[in-house]
Amino acid sequence: MRKQKKVSESYVIMTELVLPNDTNTLHNLMGGKMMHWMDIVSAIAAQKHSNRIVVTASVDNVSFKESIKLGNVVTLEAKVTRAFASSMEVHIVVYAEDIPSGKKVLSNQAFFTFVAVDQSGKAIDVPEAIPETEEEVKLYDGALRRRQLRLVLAGRMKPSEANELKSIFDIKESGAEV
Amino acid sequence: MRKQKKVSESYVIMTELVLPNDTNTLHNLMGGKMMHWMDIVSAIAAQKHSNRIVVTASVDNVSFKESIKLGNVVTLEAKVTRAFASSMEVHIVVYAEDIPSGKKVLSNQAFFTFVAVDQSGKAIDVPEAIPETEEEVKLYDGALRRRQLRLVLAGRMKPSEANELKSIFDIKESGAEV
Amino acid sequence: MRKQKKVSESYVIMTELVLPNDTNTLHNLMGGKMMHWMDIVSAIAAQKHSNRIVVTASVDNVSFKESIKLGNVVTLEAKVTRAFASSMEVHIVVYAEDIPSGKKVLSNQAFFTFVAVDQSGKAIDVPEAIPETEEEVKLYDGALRRRQLRLVLAGRMKPSEANELKSIFDIKESGAEV
Amino acid sequence: MRKQKKVSESYVIMTELVLPNDTNTLHNLMGGKMMHWMDIVSAIAAQKHSNRIVVTASVDNVSFKESIKLGNVVTLEAKVTRAFASSMEVHIVVYAEDIPSGKKVLSNQAFFTFVAVDQSGKAIDVPEAIPETEEEVKLYDGALRRRQLRLVLAGRMKPSEANELKSIFDIKESGAEV
Amino acid sequence: MRKQKKVSESYVIMTELVLPNDTNTLHNLMGGKMMHWMDIVSAIAAQKHSNRIVVTASVDNVSFKESIKLGNVVTLEAKVTRAFASSMEVHIVVYAEDIPSGKKVLSNQAFFTFVAVDQSGKAIDVPEAIPETEEEVKLYDGALRRRQLRLVLAGRMKPSEANELKSIFDIKESGAEV
Amino acid sequence: MRKQKKVSESYVIMTELVLPNDTNTLHNLMGGKMMHWMDIVSAIAAQKHSNRIVVTASVDNVSFKESIKLGNVVTLEAKVTRAFASSMEVHIVVYAEDIPSGKKVLSNQAFFTFVAVDQSGKAIDVPEAIPETEEEVKLYDGALRRRQLRLVLAGRMKPSEANELKSIFDIKESGAEV
Repeated sequence: MRKQKKVSESYVIMTELVLPNDTNTLHNLMGGKMMHWMDIVSAIAAQKHSNRIVVTASVDNVSFKESIKLGNVVTLEAKVTRAFASSMEVHIVVYAEDIPSGKKVLSNQAFFTFVAVDQSGKAIDVPEAIPETEEEVKLYDGALRRRQLRLVLAGRMKPSEANELKSIFDIKESGAEV
Repeated sequence: MRKQKKVSESYVIMTELVLPNDTNTLHNLMGGKMMHWMDIVSAIAAQKHSNRIVVTASVDNVSFKESIKLGNVVTLEAKVTRAFASSMEVHIVVYAEDIPSGKKVLSNQAFFTFVAVDQSGKAIDVPEAIPETEEEVKLYDGALRRRQLRLVLAGRMKPSEANELKSIFDIKESGAEV
Repeated sequence: MRKQKKVSESYVIMTELVLPNDTNTLHNLMGGKMMHWMDIVSAIAAQKHSNRIVVTASVDNVSFKESIKLGNVVTLEAKVTRAFASSMEVHIVVYAEDIPSGKKVLSNQAFFTFVAVDQSGKAIDVPEAIPETEEEVKLYDGALRRRQLRLVLAGRMKPSEANELKSIFDIKESGAEV
Repeated sequence: MRKQKKVSESYVIMTELVLPNDTNTLHNLMGGKMMHWMDIVSAIAAQKHSNRIVVTASVDNVSFKESIKLGNVVTLEAKVTRAFASSMEVHIVVYAEDIPSGKKVLSNQAFFTFVAVDQSGKAIDVPEAIPETEEEVKLYDGALRRRQLRLVLAGRMKPSEANELKSIFDIKESGAEV
Repeated sequence: MRKQKKVSESYVIMTELVLPNDTNTLHNLMGGKMMHWMDIVSAIAAQKHSNRIVVTASVDNVSFKESIKLGNVVTLEAKVTRAFASSMEVHIVVYAEDIPSGKKVLSNQAFFTFVAVDQSGKAIDVPEAIPETEEEVKLYDGALRRRQLRLVLAGRMKPSEANELKSIFDIKESGAEV
Repeated sequence: MRKQKKVSESYVIMTELVLPNDTNTLHNLMGGKMMHWMDIVSAIAAQKHSNRIVVTASVDNVSFKESIKLGNVVTLEAKVTRAFASSMEVHIVVYAEDIPSGKKVLSNQAFFTFVAVDQSGKAIDVPEAIPETEEEVKLYDGALRRRQLRLVLAGRMKPSEANELKSIFDIKESGAEV
């Protein structure tokens, strides 16, 4: 039987200080630097779930609403939402905090997918991810839908076969639920 | 009347050498570093189109198929595909080359969206983007569909209003055509 | 009356992946890089306590026992232990984890001290730090002793006046209790 | 008989320019970056004494008095003070200079300890360090006292056995003499 | 017969954004950072010509006329001008662009020389470089003269034997023609 | 009368450890990184002579003979050789040392030229540089010749007017004497 691990065992928190070289000429954090941090924190979550070296397989649509300033503190929280054969979807939530003013905002959410590999780089199976809280169950349930969207967007699944994807047209006002 | 600029005027080529700190323990380029480079090259393309400071608004689904090794040369080509009021969609194509072996592969494609802003960070209108080649026209035409997907995924458009998006179900085997 | 904040409100977790440039020729994390991370995580804890810009005032004796390898995940946890007029002592605990092998060790502990400053760089008072758990109370109680040691070592207090310091001779087998 | 080397043979000077990414939002050099430089310069001194790869074993109490600004030139001078079986204590003196104004200050002093290791990371004996100047003899003599303090602080020596440490209570107004 | 490759096959474009850490206290790009970029782009051109690992052999006189500001976009274009047994001369042209103002200037030109090596670091022969355009032929022809100057400056050729070098005294107003 | 300063007052020593990101796939220090260090150390020497902000004006021919390995210690020594109105020539000598094997080699020599500027970036006069030792006098004397070569190479002086340059044809076997 396939090994099982709780979603919560993969949970990682990363904290970064926005330094000058991370910013553009308006002194705002550049989107690409944020993506770089997202990749590292979610790779660690996927490593913790699989106890393997992992490689990034895909990044879902990410939108940037808030500008994050030089000197702000950025907190990234990541956890595996669901595991497929050798791949894992990781959910990342990013907060930005201007500590002197005490202002903290939810900056971004994202889904990254990783594949566990052995030393030669070959894909290798990972444990099942078991959700426990209501939020974890919801993310687990949505993972199939997001996976079909990824496959359709990558041209590896025919839209007509993407049964789960149809429910995308029922989503409500939050990007997180996709 | 709104100013017009050719798509080709925004064209940018960036070349990077994969250095040790860009790689994981398998000596492969990390996905987040690639995203960082994609963000910079596409921001420059959007700057060239708008002659403005630009901020990253969103990143579309990106998938990573090929592993890129330490010492490889990565070439990123970016150009604006279409401009909306103050936002621009940029298409990025990434090639990875192992020069000693002469092996060069198409590594990734991606769409990043930027908003042009003034010195105070407020959104400001940009010129229209005029496609000329067949490929530019195709990317221009697909931009509306990708935009609706972005808005639906961000919870800012009801799926029922995304008329263009329906055509996503007609895409064929290549991710580039999305 | 002086404002009060709970010790737990300053709690910060930072996670770092050991990359090639952080290591020496044995592929071990360099001590100086670790100190750099300790400084950032503890500065953020001091910022959270004071809601001010902070500057590093001193670093207590740190010892390095475990070698941490390339590719390991380093977790740093920091919280303010006690606040004096404008200065704050922060306790940092560092764990190193080799995820593929599942081996996680307590790597280091350290005490950094920060001073809160205004925009002109002048020292400014901070809230009192209120410990709640047994461990927080112990760290709070030891802070006076460590402070006297710092002042004596910096030549700013006569040893004969360091009443609290005498109890250093009663410490037991753990460095954490100093 | 154990090999001998003069203290002066390990002497190293390092010069660094304070760049934007080394500074906090007040444009002052961050303490952690300074520690990183101290670690590198003192590791080189220990390498020169031992002709071995070295690993950082401990960092003594460091205090930061002067703020060092963006664009300042930082000079770090390091030399071994005394060698024990496989470990070496290194003394580091740091000067900060604002060249346009001609202002140069003694910024910090620190003691770092290193262990010489072979290719497999195992501790290996190092030559004796022979002090020549009056200052070198003084630093050599104080090394035993500082070593006992390190061992007591790390919980590896009982304070009652730290005979040399008692003299700490006789130190005068300078931190350097500890 | 020796293999031949067209000069145009080695052509590389690199684009860089001037970030805070690349600048001095006047917010101008530092010359050394520019040299670093020149070295990477020209090494890639030499790699493309030789399909080998290459090492920098020499850098010709470079002058810096324009100051390049933070946020500017720097474009470097490199191509091999001529190949000798195992060495290649590469010509680099650098443009700096302030995109919001639409100002683009020719910033620098330089010649770097590389040697192709095998995995053990030993020099190895490279294909002949065949110039096609008028500009490529001019650069090809000048290469011998520049090579003699390099050898004379390095003390490896007697000036009296540098027949080609004499023509240096016929150069006109452009540094590029040297 | 123009202010005078001794050449020795501008003397700077910089020490760098070759880290993974400084190296190519053969684990050798890249030439561009070395140029970057040369630029910083020589800029500091020019700052010390002029007590001004300085900008790089030109870099003379540099050749790279020795390969420098990962983990080596690189020592750069710089001093002003001669000052013209607002410009200064700086001589840099670079040593590379493999400490475990005790092998130290003279790696490179170079001449960089800097211009002193005020806060608005305008050129400003600097003190005269007074050589004292025999080697300083020799470097001082050669500076005029090297300056003429720079001007001729940059197309700013007619070769027929470069009287000093003719003596280049009398140089002997060492690049340093140019």
